[in-house]
Amino acid sequence: MSCGMAYGQEAEVMEVVEEVVAVSDADVLGFAVDNLFLLLAAVLVIFMQAGFAILESGLNHSKNTVNILMKNVMDFAIGVLLYFFIGYGIMYGDGNGYFAFDGPVSFDASEQTIAAGELTTMVDFLFQAAFAATAATIVSGAVAGRMKFAAYMIYTVVLTGVIYPISGYWKWGGGWLDAMGFYDFAGSIVVHAVGGFAGLAGAIVLGPRIGRFGKDKTAMPGHNLTFAALGVFILLIGWFGFNPGSQLAIVGADNTLAVMLIAVNTTLAAAAGAVSALVLSWVLDKKPDLTMALNGILAGLVGITANCDGVTNGESIVIGVVAGLLVVAGIKLLEAVKIDDPVGAWPVHGLCGLWGGIATGIFGDYSDGYGNMTAQITGSIVIAAYAFVTMFILFTILKAVGVLRVSEEDEMVGLDLSEHGHSAYGE
Amino acid sequence: MSCGMAYGQEAEVMEVVEEVVAVSDADVLGFAVDNLFLLLAAVLVIFMQAGFAILESGLNHSKNTVNILMKNVMDFAIGVLLYFFIGYGIMYGDGNGYFAFDGPVSFDASEQTIAAGELTTMVDFLFQAAFAATAATIVSGAVAGRMKFAAYMIYTVVLTGVIYPISGYWKWGGGWLDAMGFYDFAGSIVVHAVGGFAGLAGAIVLGPRIGRFGKDKTAMPGHNLTFAALGVFILLIGWFGFNPGSQLAIVGADNTLAVMLIAVNTTLAAAAGAVSALVLSWVLDKKPDLTMALNGILAGLVGITANCDGVTNGESIVIGVVAGLLVVAGIKLLEAVKIDDPVGAWPVHGLCGLWGGIATGIFGDYSDGYGNMTAQITGSIVIAAYAFVTMFILFTILKAVGVLRVSEEDEMVGLDLSEHGHSAYGE
Amino acid sequence: MSCGMAYGQEAEVMEVVEEVVAVSDADVLGFAVDNLFLLLAAVLVIFMQAGFAILESGLNHSKNTVNILMKNVMDFAIGVLLYFFIGYGIMYGDGNGYFAFDGPVSFDASEQTIAAGELTTMVDFLFQAAFAATAATIVSGAVAGRMKFAAYMIYTVVLTGVIYPISGYWKWGGGWLDAMGFYDFAGSIVVHAVGGFAGLAGAIVLGPRIGRFGKDKTAMPGHNLTFAALGVFILLIGWFGFNPGSQLAIVGADNTLAVMLIAVNTTLAAAAGAVSALVLSWVLDKKPDLTMALNGILAGLVGITANCDGVTNGESIVIGVVAGLLVVAGIKLLEAVKIDDPVGAWPVHGLCGLWGGIATGIFGDYSDGYGNMTAQITGSIVIAAYAFVTMFILFTILKAVGVLRVSEEDEMVGLDLSEHGHSAYGE
Repeated sequence: MSCGMAYGQEAEVMEVVEEVVAVSDADVLGFAVDNLFLLLAAVLVIFMQAGFAILESGLNHSKNTVNILMKNVMDFAIGVLLYFFIGYGIMYGDGNGYFAFDGPVSFDASEQTIAAGELTTMVDFLFQAAFAATAATIVSGAVAGRMKFAAYMIYTVVLTGVIYPISGYWKWGGGWLDAMGFYDFAGSIVVHAVGGFAGLAGAIVLGPRIGRFGKDKTAMPGHNLTFAALGVFILLIGWFGFNPGSQLAIVGADNTLAVMLIAVNTTLAAAAGAVSALVLSWVLDKKPDLTMALNGILAGLVGITANCDGVTNGESIVIGVVAGLLVVAGIKLLEAVKIDDPVGAWPVHGLCGLWGGIATGIFGDYSDGYGNMTAQITGSIVIAAYAFVTMFILFTILKAVGVLRVSEEDEMVGLDLSEHGHSAYGE
Repeated sequence: MSCGMAYGQEAEVMEVVEEVVAVSDADVLGFAVDNLFLLLAAVLVIFMQAGFAILESGLNHSKNTVNILMKNVMDFAIGVLLYFFIGYGIMYGDGNGYFAFDGPVSFDASEQTIAAGELTTMVDFLFQAAFAATAATIVSGAVAGRMKFAAYMIYTVVLTGVIYPISGYWKWGGGWLDAMGFYDFAGSIVVHAVGGFAGLAGAIVLGPRIGRFGKDKTAMPGHNLTFAALGVFILLIGWFGFNPGSQLAIVGADNTLAVMLIAVNTTLAAAAGAVSALVLSWVLDKKPDLTMALNGILAGLVGITANCDGVTNGESIVIGVVAGLLVVAGIKLLEAVKIDDPVGAWPVHGLCGLWGGIATGIFGDYSDGYGNMTAQITGSIVIAAYAFVTMFILFTILKAVGVLRVSEEDEMVGLDLSEHGHSAYGE
Repeated sequence: MSCGMAYGQEAEVMEVVEEVVAVSDADVLGFAVDNLFLLLAAVLVIFMQAGFAILESGLNHSKNTVNILMKNVMDFAIGVLLYFFIGYGIMYGDGNGYFAFDGPVSFDASEQTIAAGELTTMVDFLFQAAFAATAATIVSGAVAGRMKFAAYMIYTVVLTGVIYPISGYWKWGGGWLDAMGFYDFAGSIVVHAVGGFAGLAGAIVLGPRIGRFGKDKTAMPGHNLTFAALGVFILLIGWFGFNPGSQLAIVGADNTLAVMLIAVNTTLAAAAGAVSALVLSWVLDKKPDLTMALNGILAGLVGITANCDGVTNGESIVIGVVAGLLVVAGIKLLEAVKIDDPVGAWPVHGLCGLWGGIATGIFGDYSDGYGNMTAQITGSIVIAAYAFVTMFILFTILKAVGVLRVSEEDEMVGLDLSEHGHSAYGE
């Protein structure tokens, strides 16, 4: 030190050195907070499996309960493992825009950058695996009551291991749909439309349950609407992981503001969907129908998922209202064309997923050309058609080799006794 | 720079400039953490809707299940929308101490201060909207089994849009009760007593269910106590958002310490309430009654809500014990005076809400004159009476015009079939 | 200041002083984030009580539902209070390696160090109390359907107040098992094996339910597998508090990385357990059995609990696969030796708890001699034997004085009516 610098000044230099540590404290803290944020979001999305399980259980006949629960449980178990070994490496691999595969999840902690916004591979995998399991489990409701359990296991392996990751790569992995400006924030199309249209393919190939469109035109109501309502509430809670978590970071003023906006837009769309679906069905059917209100909540949630970060509160309400109307219309449409989707998986996730993709083009405010209507229409139709066609082929093959649908007797007895050998309410 | 300052010292100045950025890192991080904290709290409070829905479902006859679920679902949906357009602007508006209204929620991100403790309007709205929906849905249990669904919809619009926000403004919006030193940390009075006394008004105006106080003096037990127990557990979980979240910030040593104390006090009061309610009812009725233990948990939770930030662990246990005794006494009292409150909404939320307000005066340790006994008694009685009287008038008007109560035949058939056209267990 | 220091340099000194405040910002933020992290973990673990309650309810006969729910509710209520007054002071007291007791929980906020990793006594108590209640409630399933409610209340007082805290102290309080290098990260042994072996003692002393191993060899299936499945999903969610929370801090790169690894390892083991249990039981029994898949999830979770922070993803899958096989084998074993454990509490928590302890010795990568096989075998056997023997003695005493088991008539009627005077489905 030159020029008679006082002792105090030397100490000062030491303090500044210590301050450099303080700067990295911010990195360490931001790293902790962002990874914690995504972990909590992942847990909420995993909780959605419980929501789907009891919603679908409640909306179906009690004789098929074990089967539905088992499908949801194994969607999670198989989905996580397959996504670990195959799916994640496809969806976030380094590819040519159409296909990629980087191998199973691997992670070297020593190469981890420590800073806000830097997610560990571990938590990113967990969050994305929960999304894959969600896409898979949407189908279980649409094919309820008549598909062999083994066939469903084959389906879930194919969907979570290959089909979902490939179209996911097209958008979220930076593939060709992303390159053309297609926008889907948290997966109206990438997750929900994939599940909804895969379910539609299953419902068509399987054909309706025995007696569903017979002379007495029975609606085949569910066996426990308390389960159904609880399931929808759990899904609503889970969506606070699904949508806000998709911001992938909360540290940084822009991220914090975005997450809070997303949470409120998600809530408003859900509420608006419930109201509009209830009002429309009340007018049409003269009675306020609980299942329509429940489907309205889900419809609003699916519709806002693609665009919750780029619309205003008021636009969220509009998107929710339209979704609520669409889900009622979609249920009536399936009824009219005699496609048997026992829980309304296609109206909720397929149709309102498409609406979410299109609504992003109408209302979304994004930069860099993202969300232009051409890209939105292209992406929405391509992914929905891709899921529908690939799954239609798979289910048709399973049908051709005779492993798709249970026998008439087994269906009448119920899948619980015929496929699983025990009943859900069997004391 | 003067006096031959060395190169190292100049670099040092640059580093200090960089340090100024480090200071704002703390603001950015604190902003993220506090807003995340309140978002998580809001999600937990929204989860309480699920708890109320299945608790009330379980404690009532299966023939009224769809109706109860529907009320809870629409309390949430309508509550969120009305609180967005009207309620929030009343409750946190700029007014004269008695009434305010600032219009619908609006938010300009560019004017947001970025710092710890600065909540975005978005997350604050979400948290408060969940409270409004909670106040509304407490009533659904008290009026179960005989109110027309349309009348309930009118009630929930009035409560969440106007009645709850006005008394909320008196305290939490900085109105006249706040000015006189009334203290209610998280809403024993502002939320729970409002719901409990509104429910009491509904129960009185409606009159009891057919056969409730007839010769055979049937207790009309619920149809599914597993739902009831699960509902209470979910409410307990939700209360970890309700009470700790009401600190509105967790960053800062005082906030962190307060949140942790609040969480433990809340837990201890719930546990103590369960034990004392169980013991008293065991002594009185010779059998350990599950519903009494469940109501004891809720009683302890309601009682600690007003004062969980200003009492010791030991005092929390005392408050919980008293609440547990009160809820048993309250249930016996309603039985004696033949008021039919099917789920005990008034004993739990009304009576123990009052106890929470008074206990704040007895045990609460607050500065600035907050929590003095005069203010506590005034605030507790005024808000409870306000909710009771306004709702008594509303229900009386609905009764006068013939839209309040279903017909005898409809009640006997059950509201599910008569009001909604489908049963909850209708396969 | 000496030597004509310029104004800018003086201002610089002021800035450095301000920077010292910035350093403490990091402490304040880290303190908030770590305590928030553990609070959220505690809430998730408390949620597990709901999971156990409805899992056990669903797996038993409907006539014993109120009894099971009541036991779970009171395990929580009594557990929290006793752990507050006695248990915490034993488990984390200052003792001689074998026993300690520091009195009830007490806390002086003014002595709290404010820094990352410094947990408040409040949140630490809450997290640990939830663990104690978990250990207690595991037993409720094993003794379902025939134990007097009063006897169970005595048991839960003894376990949460004394037995669990003593062995907990041996490891987590820094006692003799910790000193010898025994490792149990989140409680495969300390929590789950204690509950599992205490339950085994209860099941043996009580003897089987009437008719359980009679000529018709009825399996006595549960009354509601939707409850069972929902319970398992809730337990899975709760485990994201149980295991990641046991890191006790998330701030600091090592902590953040550890928490994320733990979360993923936990998930992978659960998934692998479900798959292997399903496959094995499918092969053995020719049908895919839902309860086996559900038990497989729990088995994987219990097995990974001791070592989730010190194994690779691949090892987690292996641990889960083995746990899934073990739980099926354990259920068959109990069947063969005619021990009646209605929900499989011992196969899941006892046997797979032991497996978790041993697997830590096989796969765990720890420093300082922790997790050596000698210590793992010693600790696992000692704690399991301690829980089994002490509880065997307690239950035998209760049996000797005639307060353990209900009468034959009461058992046939069901515990709900005979012990509690009301039914769960009693409308």
